[in-house]
Amino acid sequence: MRIRRLRLNRDYADSLDGLAHRATSIGIAPKTAGLGQRVRWRLDREAGTARLENPPERLRHYVVPVKPMLGGLAVAPGFGLGAPPTGDTGRWGGNMDFNRIVEGATVYLPVHQPGAMLYLGDGHALQGDGETTQWALETSLDVEFSVQVLPGRALAAPRVEDDTHISTIGQASSLDEAARAATAAMIQWLEQDYGLDVSEASLVLGTVAEFRVVTLAGRNAAIALSLDKARLAGLTRDDRGTGLKPPSR
Amino acid sequence: MRIRRLRLNRDYADSLDGLAHRATSIGIAPKTAGLGQRVRWRLDREAGTARLENPPERLRHYVVPVKPMLGGLAVAPGFGLGAPPTGDTGRWGGNMDFNRIVEGATVYLPVHQPGAMLYLGDGHALQGDGETTQWALETSLDVEFSVQVLPGRALAAPRVEDDTHISTIGQASSLDEAARAATAAMIQWLEQDYGLDVSEASLVLGTVAEFRVVTLAGRNAAIALSLDKARLAGLTRDDRGTGLKPPSR
Amino acid sequence: MRIRRLRLNRDYADSLDGLAHRATSIGIAPKTAGLGQRVRWRLDREAGTARLENPPERLRHYVVPVKPMLGGLAVAPGFGLGAPPTGDTGRWGGNMDFNRIVEGATVYLPVHQPGAMLYLGDGHALQGDGETTQWALETSLDVEFSVQVLPGRALAAPRVEDDTHISTIGQASSLDEAARAATAAMIQWLEQDYGLDVSEASLVLGTVAEFRVVTLAGRNAAIALSLDKARLAGLTRDDRGTGLKPPSR
Amino acid sequence: MRIRRLRLNRDYADSLDGLAHRATSIGIAPKTAGLGQRVRWRLDREAGTARLENPPERLRHYVVPVKPMLGGLAVAPGFGLGAPPTGDTGRWGGNMDFNRIVEGATVYLPVHQPGAMLYLGDGHALQGDGETTQWALETSLDVEFSVQVLPGRALAAPRVEDDTHISTIGQASSLDEAARAATAAMIQWLEQDYGLDVSEASLVLGTVAEFRVVTLAGRNAAIALSLDKARLAGLTRDDRGTGLKPPSR
Repeated sequence: MRIRRLRLNRDYADSLDGLAHRATSIGIAPKTAGLGQRVRWRLDREAGTARLENPPERLRHYVVPVKPMLGGLAVAPGFGLGAPPTGDTGRWGGNMDFNRIVEGATVYLPVHQPGAMLYLGDGHALQGDGETTQWALETSLDVEFSVQVLPGRALAAPRVEDDTHISTIGQASSLDEAARAATAAMIQWLEQDYGLDVSEASLVLGTVAEFRVVTLAGRNAAIALSLDKARLAGLTRDDRGTGLKPPSR
Repeated sequence: MRIRRLRLNRDYADSLDGLAHRATSIGIAPKTAGLGQRVRWRLDREAGTARLENPPERLRHYVVPVKPMLGGLAVAPGFGLGAPPTGDTGRWGGNMDFNRIVEGATVYLPVHQPGAMLYLGDGHALQGDGETTQWALETSLDVEFSVQVLPGRALAAPRVEDDTHISTIGQASSLDEAARAATAAMIQWLEQDYGLDVSEASLVLGTVAEFRVVTLAGRNAAIALSLDKARLAGLTRDDRGTGLKPPSR
Repeated sequence: MRIRRLRLNRDYADSLDGLAHRATSIGIAPKTAGLGQRVRWRLDREAGTARLENPPERLRHYVVPVKPMLGGLAVAPGFGLGAPPTGDTGRWGGNMDFNRIVEGATVYLPVHQPGAMLYLGDGHALQGDGETTQWALETSLDVEFSVQVLPGRALAAPRVEDDTHISTIGQASSLDEAARAATAAMIQWLEQDYGLDVSEASLVLGTVAEFRVVTLAGRNAAIALSLDKARLAGLTRDDRGTGLKPPSR
Repeated sequence: MRIRRLRLNRDYADSLDGLAHRATSIGIAPKTAGLGQRVRWRLDREAGTARLENPPERLRHYVVPVKPMLGGLAVAPGFGLGAPPTGDTGRWGGNMDFNRIVEGATVYLPVHQPGAMLYLGDGHALQGDGETTQWALETSLDVEFSVQVLPGRALAAPRVEDDTHISTIGQASSLDEAARAATAAMIQWLEQDYGLDVSEASLVLGTVAEFRVVTLAGRNAAIALSLDKARLAGLTRDDRGTGLKPPSR
């Protein structure tokens, strides 16, 4: 699915203060009592910025550029899982909260059911990595997108591609398992589209891997592994995903 | 400690292929048998690039810009810990393997012992996030640095500052705990130097946090929380770390 | 809910061979290819034992006593969660797979909805800690139980009591978080029914805590913290859970 | 190493109140401020019991049977690790804090260095699972033991055997990894001494596994996987560990 257009369509967004459970250390916990309060941001669509509606003194001049993104994007999951809550995530996507799913990005999801049953939502005007405030700058968005079916390709995890990077999203019960899942999914992608074997793929990861925390706010934690496409320019890419034959070693 | 100059001084670096344990999923594990082999890279110091000395066919044109960094940087730890192995990490620094510790960066470490007992090493010509190959492009480096003692400031974790970002490094037995530690350490920094309370700091993190995996190759896992200083331009910074008084709320 | 009677009512049970994901190390992973096969056990209800229907040579004489238990037991969860899949777990119970939920045991669950909406199922003739084979010895059971409403008591987690032990079940995304949850829930119980403060409760746990892995087979991992009631004989228990006043310290 | 005799030799033991970091949930954290205080226990060697020297009112009648155990037991580790702190753990043993290492128990450790370099210590009069108070009832002990060298057997992890159970100790950065390590080590043991393949071993674990938390107080977490030897009576054990040939399946 390619997001052709993703634009703010109202002048405010609501967030929370505080820290998601996965962002809260035992030492900081006693200081977070009473947090989790709703906070309103004013969005300046012309300037493309956000600022607090009622800022405390120290944040009076805190103004940040917005970066509209889709937090939720999914197809129906495989057999046996039932209808997952919209807040959940899995191989089939879901409430992924990955801040690279912005205008111009392409998201690849594995189709499990006839008709795919695509749905999307959870517009964010801006979100730091991890969605540590549990709510990002939640707002409504105008969305235009196109969908294409790519037959015959196995996907271990959601993939995202934008102008500069390819990314895999590992989702699991812990960041540790999520990092492993993102790594395995990227190795699969490098194998399918670039014809690399695991040894070769590992040399690429060892030199140019970018691991970012995607979300700390969901039931699953998630980590994205992104590769800068400029660094991969010397490789041969075959988008048909047929898996070029690697040389014997 | 400020790294004034950090330059390559030889024409090769040695790495491994394969995946560190923390990067290996159960599914990928059977495919990694036999990996962990030494791989030599040629460094072109003029062009500032690295390429494999004996590339497999598919990586023949894989050329990447180097980014020399110091993997190890530490002071002596606090009482009761003994002399830690140089490969270990803690509040006192150690084999941190953070790829933002480059020329021009300033590293802040809490001094625990008279004389601090600073040491450094583990030069890398280039390293992806996580050091997933267990060895980065290991090489020797020319290092020039200056040291300054900043009295009276408590540091929960190592801090790094470069031209564009401030970063805290959370080091723990899991990425999950490391993310919590990095968050708590950044909140401490925002409190000390920017006068923010936890609620205010959480709003900054919720909008502009950048969480990167530092290392998957050590006994501790590590995550860095970085903030773009351009985003913090509207805040008032007091580098003396005295803790500006936050406004009452 | 008290389980008054829990008996086998058929002569076989079905299990799998193999290891649940949470029981599989990277080293053992390559040896588990092809496992996960269905295995039938014959149940001797007279003798109270189970043996494989078609045992491999080395397990020909492997006969184990059955211990019928209920894997699933739940009330409806709180607002906002929707209808959870029956395989999931939470404060409200669920597919807990705790092998102390046997005949004679009492299970305490926090009621979230009018009418509680109790349900139960997932009969196991026998299950080792952790349900490492993903399926225990799955079978049908005759169940008799009685239900009592205990108003005005807060429960952080499911509690189980049998003739010899009181147990709390911590359920979380990792065993590490589950151990913390079980500990916090037992401290709550010791506070409510035994009037202990956290310091006092910690001394009891430090001397007689029994931590068992409940399940490795679910989306949540779970750990039970059990205390032998004989060890608590010197304390004063007030089952009304009103929280006896602890002494000032 | 077999512990022939392990007896109390003084009349007191010192512990702490409070919760180790790995036992502390975010919710309980604010209530643990000020804990971690030293607490003295009186040991009645005749009766074999412990009670607090200065009990708070609610614990005045709290008397518990002692169960003397050795918290620390190790050989020198393999090459490249240096001399580990005595508080650390690994394949070579260390400050394991497993409360089944009592009089009569046999501990198997893999020898890495000429002469093995066995050491032991850290006497506990009593310790609950997990050593949640960071200190158990720390005391001195009279120890008699004998050592035997068993050539030609690989051990993935420390093993313990007593009258009733065989146990493997998984030690890792998290309980989740520790459970996996304990499982893999027990499968190795069942393979070596009972001739079972992974499928067969998994059926034994699925029915009679007992997973206990060993320690929450160390840098590594640990979980023991114990099997009741009465349940294994139908299997053929060959203690020479040569690995009986499993039948073809």
